[in-house]
Amino acid sequence: MRSGSIVISKNPLHKNGKPLAIGRGLRTKVNANIGTSQDFAGLDEELRKLEVCIEAKADAVMDLSTGGDIDKIRRAIIKNSPLNVGTVPIYQAMIDIKTGTDEFDKIIFDIIEKQAADGVDFMTLHCGVTKKVAASLKRKKRLMGIVSRGGSFLYSWMMKTGKENPLFEQYDRALDILKKYNVAISLGDGLRPGSIIDAGDPAQIEELKTLGRLSKRAREKGVQVFIEGPGHVPIDKIVDQMKLEKKLCDNAPFYVLGPLPTDIGAGYDHLTSAIGGALAASAGADFLCYVTPSEHLGLPNVDDVREGIIASRIAAHIGDIAKGVPGALERDVEMSKARMALNWSKQISLSIDPKKAAELHRSRSKTRKDTCTMCGDFCAMKVFKRV
Amino acid sequence: MRSGSIVISKNPLHKNGKPLAIGRGLRTKVNANIGTSQDFAGLDEELRKLEVCIEAKADAVMDLSTGGDIDKIRRAIIKNSPLNVGTVPIYQAMIDIKTGTDEFDKIIFDIIEKQAADGVDFMTLHCGVTKKVAASLKRKKRLMGIVSRGGSFLYSWMMKTGKENPLFEQYDRALDILKKYNVAISLGDGLRPGSIIDAGDPAQIEELKTLGRLSKRAREKGVQVFIEGPGHVPIDKIVDQMKLEKKLCDNAPFYVLGPLPTDIGAGYDHLTSAIGGALAASAGADFLCYVTPSEHLGLPNVDDVREGIIASRIAAHIGDIAKGVPGALERDVEMSKARMALNWSKQISLSIDPKKAAELHRSRSKTRKDTCTMCGDFCAMKVFKRV
Repeated sequence: MRSGSIVISKNPLHKNGKPLAIGRGLRTKVNANIGTSQDFAGLDEELRKLEVCIEAKADAVMDLSTGGDIDKIRRAIIKNSPLNVGTVPIYQAMIDIKTGTDEFDKIIFDIIEKQAADGVDFMTLHCGVTKKVAASLKRKKRLMGIVSRGGSFLYSWMMKTGKENPLFEQYDRALDILKKYNVAISLGDGLRPGSIIDAGDPAQIEELKTLGRLSKRAREKGVQVFIEGPGHVPIDKIVDQMKLEKKLCDNAPFYVLGPLPTDIGAGYDHLTSAIGGALAASAGADFLCYVTPSEHLGLPNVDDVREGIIASRIAAHIGDIAKGVPGALERDVEMSKARMALNWSKQISLSIDPKKAAELHRSRSKTRKDTCTMCGDFCAMKVFKRV
Repeated sequence: MRSGSIVISKNPLHKNGKPLAIGRGLRTKVNANIGTSQDFAGLDEELRKLEVCIEAKADAVMDLSTGGDIDKIRRAIIKNSPLNVGTVPIYQAMIDIKTGTDEFDKIIFDIIEKQAADGVDFMTLHCGVTKKVAASLKRKKRLMGIVSRGGSFLYSWMMKTGKENPLFEQYDRALDILKKYNVAISLGDGLRPGSIIDAGDPAQIEELKTLGRLSKRAREKGVQVFIEGPGHVPIDKIVDQMKLEKKLCDNAPFYVLGPLPTDIGAGYDHLTSAIGGALAASAGADFLCYVTPSEHLGLPNVDDVREGIIASRIAAHIGDIAKGVPGALERDVEMSKARMALNWSKQISLSIDPKKAAELHRSRSKTRKDTCTMCGDFCAMKVFKRV
């Protein structure tokens, strides 16, 4: 959209891909990160995760592979995915230069172009990790330093070489490639807080201001842009952070990871993330990146992916009710009517995950037909309706 | 406490029971509902649930049994529980009069006294379901009618007999019994909204005002009192509802069920409840009643109980960070330090559920020692620390 408050992401080279619309007034979308790591590098497992993403109704996937033949994996995911596919090209650069060369600035643009030519729909580029922004890390010491892989790689490379971030210095070069392939840019938050105590510190805010300026330049070039956000944020700061992004980035769509309102949820971070995500969405976040139960503990497996998607979809839906997105509240009304009517098949089909609801109901229902086994004859609705 | 903003619940006849302190400035507490139903009436299963409540660190349990020999079950639970035990005496009355008599007003006070003499620490009494309050149900029609078992029973009995709710009409009689045994009263919300679209309607607010007046009378009598709250509430109304309770009930502790910010979460209502509960706690709710994955589908089993408790404890902790409860943020700081140090044993011991975190980490860790299998050598923290 001309105003930049809505992005419609779709690379024409992603042949079987559907467009992804995110932004103001639209249903809050959900992204699922999949992809290999050095320790779990199999393509088949990632394609199974992709199937689960489709089945569990994610709106987009990001292939964050860092293990195995990542060109092959990315191409297979794009080929098999009707969902928008995003990547973080820096990861491929990190792998390519693992053997010793520091020439990141020489190879990154070719990698961006290669991935764009493969059909990637949107790319995370950490253009805001600049020398100036990095300096604010020293101004106020953080508990958690840098927790973004792209961010820490860039920071480390900049410190070693003394050079500026090429994605900032040659930002127009990156934009030209993205424009050529109609790839949307997701301006990465390399300095997102990794602990709630770091939330809103100078490094995070300086980077966000920089992303705001960069988003303006992207729009001027005709490249669709959205902004990535935190991370770990205490619950009483989430709403303000959403408003700040909209202000600093001129209402560019906001794509948030979490936010996680506590650091101690390991094993349940899909749930902590849904808590933060629901509040974030209700306050204007447009696109939620899921977090899985294995966050902070290891690479997610297929079951984790499914859990993460459903949790984020619940958060998105709760946000959509508050945003007044057409159709959101209506679904709850239909559900409540079905519940009042003790119409089980309708309740199950209207629930966020009919498969799980059906399994649970069946396993607890025994022989009852009308009420469930929690209340039996004492069912409040049955009693109320009799009067 | 004299001001009534804190309740310390403990029936001296609950010999092995610990006191439960809830209210302003204190850690947000978590209650787990256990108990039989007509379809699942075994005592052993309920005692296993109680063990899980203790192991997963609930702060209180309510025995909501409606199946089997409920006197025996209640006594066994009290005997085996170091946690505060609450009940809803109306349930026993419902069972006793199922055979046809309508003499609820004759038997309810004896039931209250019997349960108090058993050592019950706190009791939910729906004293606010009055003729006047019930009339507001007709003033504005609801989608979901009455979804509280106690509420719908009372309403139905009042409609059939034409009598006033004896728990309101003879409120002093109830208070006298509670005072005699030092049992806290949890003023039940029989008219809580069962759909987000009913939240904040005249019936709910009229009842809350009534509970505010009744809480004053309880304090004057020297009976400790807290207030029960919804239910299903959209996320953008939760904070205001918390503030309204504090205002109308003169800062009496608020005990909330959920709130659930969507009606479509069946199968995941522990999670939807944690979303609402975290925001409610951050805005002043003092005591969270858990909701399990089987809510709206059937009686919870042992696994559901465990999931429900952990979800509520996460919500309570997130609220405590916002409330500034001493020790809450400190735990997150310790976790973040352990994470930055890649100290896995400490991360696991500091997580909300060390058992689950350890299992998940082990199952995904393969042979790595320092970083986890998500990022491997590309671990942001490892890279950052090397610079």
